[in-house]
Amino acid sequence: MNNSKLITPRKLQGFWELMPRQQMVFSELLDKIENVFKQNCFVPLDTPVLEYSETLLAKSGGETDKEVYRFSKGSTDMCMRYDLTVPLARFVAMHKEELSFPFKRYQIGKVYRGERPQKGRFREFYQCDADIIGNETLSLVADAECVALFEKCFKALNLDVEIEVSNRKIIAGFIQSINKEDRTTDILIVLDKLAKIPFEEAMAQLKEIGLSDFESEKIIRLTKTTGNIEDVTQNLANICVNPLFNEGMKELVETDKHLKAFGVSSVIYNLSVIRGHNYYTGTVFEGFLKKDKNLGAIGGGGRFENLCSYFSDKKMPGVGMSVGVTRLFDILTKENYFNLDEINEIECAIITFDDTLEEGLSLTSKLREDGIKADCLYENKSFKSKMKEANKRQIKYVLIVGEDEVKTKEYTLKNMQNSGQEKLTLEKVIEKIKTDRMCMSDAEK
Amino acid sequence: MNNSKLITPRKLQGFWELMPRQQMVFSELLDKIENVFKQNCFVPLDTPVLEYSETLLAKSGGETDKEVYRFSKGSTDMCMRYDLTVPLARFVAMHKEELSFPFKRYQIGKVYRGERPQKGRFREFYQCDADIIGNETLSLVADAECVALFEKCFKALNLDVEIEVSNRKIIAGFIQSINKEDRTTDILIVLDKLAKIPFEEAMAQLKEIGLSDFESEKIIRLTKTTGNIEDVTQNLANICVNPLFNEGMKELVETDKHLKAFGVSSVIYNLSVIRGHNYYTGTVFEGFLKKDKNLGAIGGGGRFENLCSYFSDKKMPGVGMSVGVTRLFDILTKENYFNLDEINEIECAIITFDDTLEEGLSLTSKLREDGIKADCLYENKSFKSKMKEANKRQIKYVLIVGEDEVKTKEYTLKNMQNSGQEKLTLEKVIEKIKTDRMCMSDAEK
Repeated sequence: MNNSKLITPRKLQGFWELMPRQQMVFSELLDKIENVFKQNCFVPLDTPVLEYSETLLAKSGGETDKEVYRFSKGSTDMCMRYDLTVPLARFVAMHKEELSFPFKRYQIGKVYRGERPQKGRFREFYQCDADIIGNETLSLVADAECVALFEKCFKALNLDVEIEVSNRKIIAGFIQSINKEDRTTDILIVLDKLAKIPFEEAMAQLKEIGLSDFESEKIIRLTKTTGNIEDVTQNLANICVNPLFNEGMKELVETDKHLKAFGVSSVIYNLSVIRGHNYYTGTVFEGFLKKDKNLGAIGGGGRFENLCSYFSDKKMPGVGMSVGVTRLFDILTKENYFNLDEINEIECAIITFDDTLEEGLSLTSKLREDGIKADCLYENKSFKSKMKEANKRQIKYVLIVGEDEVKTKEYTLKNMQNSGQEKLTLEKVIEKIKTDRMCMSDAEK
Repeated sequence: MNNSKLITPRKLQGFWELMPRQQMVFSELLDKIENVFKQNCFVPLDTPVLEYSETLLAKSGGETDKEVYRFSKGSTDMCMRYDLTVPLARFVAMHKEELSFPFKRYQIGKVYRGERPQKGRFREFYQCDADIIGNETLSLVADAECVALFEKCFKALNLDVEIEVSNRKIIAGFIQSINKEDRTTDILIVLDKLAKIPFEEAMAQLKEIGLSDFESEKIIRLTKTTGNIEDVTQNLANICVNPLFNEGMKELVETDKHLKAFGVSSVIYNLSVIRGHNYYTGTVFEGFLKKDKNLGAIGGGGRFENLCSYFSDKKMPGVGMSVGVTRLFDILTKENYFNLDEINEIECAIITFDDTLEEGLSLTSKLREDGIKADCLYENKSFKSKMKEANKRQIKYVLIVGEDEVKTKEYTLKNMQNSGQEKLTLEKVIEKIKTDRMCMSDAEK
C-alpha cells in the first residue's frame, strides 16, 4: 500500500474546518438554534448542494456569476448553491400544490462562494435560515414572527441582542414623494454612508443627485430616526405625503403591536436599516450583539414581495431571517465566550490492567448506558502513562479497575481536578458523577 | 420583478430531497445516531465538501474517476468528496501532532457520486461514519468497539439487527497457504457468488483458477462457515497451516471476548463476509435487519492497516463503521416503519378573531415557552376555514381565543381527534396537553 511519492495533505483555501472540540461547540450552537426553529413550528428542508445552473442563476438572467462554482458533467450544467433562498424558491414552486401555507421552513446548511477569501469571509460557510412563505398573501404577523424567532435564537445562546427594525416602504415612499425613484440606488448609497461622512458632505452628494437642500435635510432626518415606535411616528409625522410612505408607517406600527404580543423585548427602530438585498420590499431588520455593536450585524432578515417570480406566475410573498452562524462563532471564539477547557468528549476514563481489560470494557459499556461518557484507555500502555494521558486530556474522572477492584466490585474513582479518590460500587460511581454534574450546572446558574 | 420568461423549477436527477415531514423523520434518525456517537466519546468532524483533486484522487494515482464531480476554478483543480474516509485521512495527516490517539471521530455528511442514477442509488447521499484511528498501533478492542457502536446505532432506532463478522486474514491466510495470492481477486469473485451458483459450478470456476478439488472444497467450506465463535473455531481447526490464517483466527477469538465484554448480542460469525473495499485488512462486518435479511446490508465496517498511506510515512491503522442511512431510510419508509400521520410540526393551533389576534399571539408565545409546539393561524380567514385547515393538517389541538375567552381568561381547547372540548385557563391548557402527551407515549410502550 505504501507509495514512494507522498502527497502533502492540504485543505482548500478559504474553506472552514474546525478542530474537534471547536466543532463540538459549533454543533451545539447549531443544535440550539435548530431547536428554536422546531419549537416555533418551522419544518426542516434539506435541498441538494447542486442545482441546475438555469435554476440557480435565474435571478441573474442565466449569466455566470463569477462567485458561483459552476461546472458541467455530461450535458448537465450545474452550480453549487450560493444561498438557501433560491433552492427554497425552486422547492416551493415545484411543490406548491402539496404544501400547507403559510409554509414555515428552516434550513441549516453550507453554501458556496468562489470569491477571494478574506478576513471573516469563507468560500464554504453555513447559512441558517428560517422563512415564512405565503400563497398570494401573507399576514404582517409573519414579519413579527420572524423578528421574534430571531430574538429567540440568541436567547437560546444566552446572548443579548439588539434588533434594529425598519420598513423599506417608508424611505421608498419618501423618495417617491420627491420624484426621485429613478435615483433610488444612488440616494441609498449616500444614506448608507451617513454615519461615516460629515453632514455637509452628505448634503453635497445628495444635491448632486438632484435633491433640494430641504429634501436632503428631510431624508437625512428620516434616515437618522431611531427609538421606540412612538419616537418614530412623532419624528416622521408630516414629513411627506405619499401612500407608500403611509403604508410603510402603518405596517411599522402594526408590526410593533404584534412584536409586543409575541413578547419581543430587544427591538429598536432604526430607519437607516436597509439590508443589502434588493429583494426586500417591506420590513427589514438586523441584529447586533448588545455588548459590542461595532462587530457589525450578526444576522437579520426581511419581507420580500415574491419568492418565486422566476418560476411561477403566482405571487408568493415571504419573510425570512438568517443568523450569521459562521461569523457569530468566529466572534464568540475570539471573545472567549466558549470555555474550550471545559468541553470534553470523555467524562470518565477507565484504566485497566492486563487481566482486568474485559471487566473495564464491561464497566465502560454500563456507564455509557447510564448516560456517562466513559471511555476505556485500552491501548497497551503502563498505568502511569494512562494516568498521564487522562491528565493531559483534562478528563475529570478516572476509574481504576485493578485486580482487587474486580474481586470486591468496588472501583477506585479519582477526581483529577481535586485529586480526591474513593472506592465505590458501580452504582455509587454513577451516582457520584451525576451528582457532581448537577452541582456544576447549579454553580453555573 | 415579474419575468415574462418563466423557468421550470427542476431538481437535478438522482439527488435526494425529502418533503418536510419525511425530513423531520430523517433528521430525527440522524440525531439518534449522532447521540450514540457522542455517548461513546466520538468527536464530530465537518470537513469541506470540496477538496483538492490531488488529495481526493490520491488513491487512484491522480487519474480522474468518472464518478467524481471534478472541476477547476482559476488554477485550482478540485473535487466534491465521494466519501468521508479520504477527507478523514487528509485531516488526520494534517493534524497528527495535535490530536489525541486513538482518535475517535464521527462525521455525518453528504457525499457525491456522478454515476447514473438507479434504484436505491443517489448522486448525493448521506454517509454516517465513525472511525477509530491509532498512531502506529491500535488495539483490537477498537474493532470490538466499532461493532458495539454499530449495534447501538440500531438499538437507538429500535431496530433488530444481525451483525455478521469475519476477519479477512483468515481467508487471505488460507489463499497464502495454497500459494494462490496472485489470484486472490479472482478467487474472491467466485466465493462472493457461492450463495447464488451451484456447488459444482463454483468448483469448476475455482479449478479454472488453478485450485485442486481438495483446495476448492476446503475454501468453500471455510467461506460457508457461520455460527458462534465455538462453531467457527471447531469447523476451521486444522484446515490449514499458515501464520496469517492463525493470526486471523486469534484476532477473531479475541474480538469475540471483547464483544462479549461490551455486551454485544447481535453478532454471528460468517466467513463469507468480505466487504467490497480493498482497504480492509482484518476484522470486517456487515449489518442486516433481522426481520428481512434479503434487503441486503444496511451498513458495516472493518479494520484497515493504514489510513494515511498517501500522505504520511507514519502508519495509522484504523477501524470504522458506517450506517447506510439513506438506504435504511428508504427501506423503512417502504415498510411503513414511520407513522407519517402522527408526525406534526404543530401540536396546537391557535384560532383567533379580528379583535383577539394580539391575545392569540401572546398565548402562542407562552405555550411555546412551555415546550408546546403552538402556532397561531394568523392568515385573515374565517373561523370555519381555520377549523377546516387545522383538521386537514391533522393538528391534534385547537385553542379557540374568542372575545369571551379573552375576558374570562379561560380558553376553549378542542381535541380534534375525539372532538372533546373544554374551557381552561392557560395553565390548565398546558397541563392538559402535556398529560395527554405522556399518556400517549406510555401507550406506545
